[in-house]
Amino acid sequence: MKVALVQKKYYGNTETTIEKTVEDIKKASLNGAELIVLQELHQNEYFCQSEDTKFFDYAGSWEEDITFWSTVAKANRVVLVTSLFEKRTAGLYHNTAVVFEKDGTVAGKYRKMHIPDDPGFYEKFYFTPGDLGFEPIQTSVGKLGVLVCWDQWYPEAARIMTLRGAEMLIYPTAIGWFDGDNEAEKQRQLDSWITIQRSHAIANGVPVLSCNRVGFEADSAGVMHGIRFWGNSFVCDPQGSLIAQAGSVDETILYADIDHKRTKEVRDIWPFLRDRRIEAYGNLLKRYCD
Amino acid sequence: MKVALVQKKYYGNTETTIEKTVEDIKKASLNGAELIVLQELHQNEYFCQSEDTKFFDYAGSWEEDITFWSTVAKANRVVLVTSLFEKRTAGLYHNTAVVFEKDGTVAGKYRKMHIPDDPGFYEKFYFTPGDLGFEPIQTSVGKLGVLVCWDQWYPEAARIMTLRGAEMLIYPTAIGWFDGDNEAEKQRQLDSWITIQRSHAIANGVPVLSCNRVGFEADSAGVMHGIRFWGNSFVCDPQGSLIAQAGSVDETILYADIDHKRTKEVRDIWPFLRDRRIEAYGNLLKRYCD
Repeated sequence: MKVALVQKKYYGNTETTIEKTVEDIKKASLNGAELIVLQELHQNEYFCQSEDTKFFDYAGSWEEDITFWSTVAKANRVVLVTSLFEKRTAGLYHNTAVVFEKDGTVAGKYRKMHIPDDPGFYEKFYFTPGDLGFEPIQTSVGKLGVLVCWDQWYPEAARIMTLRGAEMLIYPTAIGWFDGDNEAEKQRQLDSWITIQRSHAIANGVPVLSCNRVGFEADSAGVMHGIRFWGNSFVCDPQGSLIAQAGSVDETILYADIDHKRTKEVRDIWPFLRDRRIEAYGNLLKRYCD
Repeated sequence: MKVALVQKKYYGNTETTIEKTVEDIKKASLNGAELIVLQELHQNEYFCQSEDTKFFDYAGSWEEDITFWSTVAKANRVVLVTSLFEKRTAGLYHNTAVVFEKDGTVAGKYRKMHIPDDPGFYEKFYFTPGDLGFEPIQTSVGKLGVLVCWDQWYPEAARIMTLRGAEMLIYPTAIGWFDGDNEAEKQRQLDSWITIQRSHAIANGVPVLSCNRVGFEADSAGVMHGIRFWGNSFVCDPQGSLIAQAGSVDETILYADIDHKRTKEVRDIWPFLRDRRIEAYGNLLKRYCD
């Protein structure tokens, strides 16, 4: 099964950004991709660099957005993983991945569960933590364990998705460097980000697909310089081996073949799920064991 | 704080193997190591390649073994992490890490919780799964999250140790290649093994120390060819960056400096423990969510 990850930059406005993304979806579909994954909040700039209520307007089109991406999925006959800004009511928003079936119907949605709040990534201002739990989404190309960005640092999220039957883990994400950090630190950050996601493949015996944005986006508030999104979208197999990886600068449509038979083979010889000591895991439900 | 991992081969008999290990402990201590970690079941060959009751005799010296390694720790004034074959009674044995304080007292012990059983690694025949839970061991060089080999594939074990206050994760281990596998598969296996352990450092913001055996050991039953233990003992920092790594062929005393201040810095800026969704983690206590 052929998949495509669409690694894009922000084009300065919503219309052009969406238009360019749709062009890539068409290309990927024509090249045989059945599952297409977009990066986190792909309609706009990564607006969480500052805290400004004006950005809630982006969520105002939530229902129209669903209609629009439904049309795109149907027109290209692909399963499409989008990442949208969901408005439930005024003052209550989510960072939500919506998955569309090849016929344009909504296969399911996932509300980002782990919300970061770090300098330049002020997501707790914008997004209420998800309340739908870690539920894979059944589609015609398999049961998709869709998670979003900050979730990628949490082995718990990947494990629960797998225990609920996810056949692959998918992370729309938006992460990058601050130009002020030195090269060694930048390399460590990128390496940690790839490593933690590869580890979810290994621990759970599932392929991992991670689609990141690319390009520099200035902090519109002018407080910080901005974020240089590091791309490096990748697909790894159930042993955590990279089978496709994009660069850190250019837009890319990254293709990979997912082999469900390989998942079974790997899991049968590395049967980590067999030996979990569930009766001794109670402390996982605690904040900290003081 | 200087640590040393003693990566050794098996010398054909228990006496010589122990003697060579003690020599390395002396060297490491003279070179300033305060914490020394030995590989899994370092007194003997990796006997779990076959199922034979004769090997239970190795556990017969369990109490003398503790006395012996206590003397070694005290003589070299080091905190020593050993990996021994524990006899509780006939027909009831554990794979147990015993940690000794610099004065030779027993700081604590950990009974391997996750027990593998794969071709060439028939551990379920020998070891009852541990019943002491995931409890770090307090020592004069910090609170040690000691786990053993197969545990390294389980994010749950690393997480609970961290939630219980472990300041570093330590894995005595014995893992290697079958010569019959092709080079690409061997590389994937080694890479997966390093990656999953580095991921525990990243997810939990703690250094990881992993001490593996090296050298070829034939299957004494003659059923399989044998295991070529792949060494590659390593230490990584709380971002998962490798700060020391041994090769795959030679015996090595691997030194590294552990910087507790760095742990605090990394955790404060990558505050993954802050955002765990503990109220949504209940499924982690299930075998599978059918």
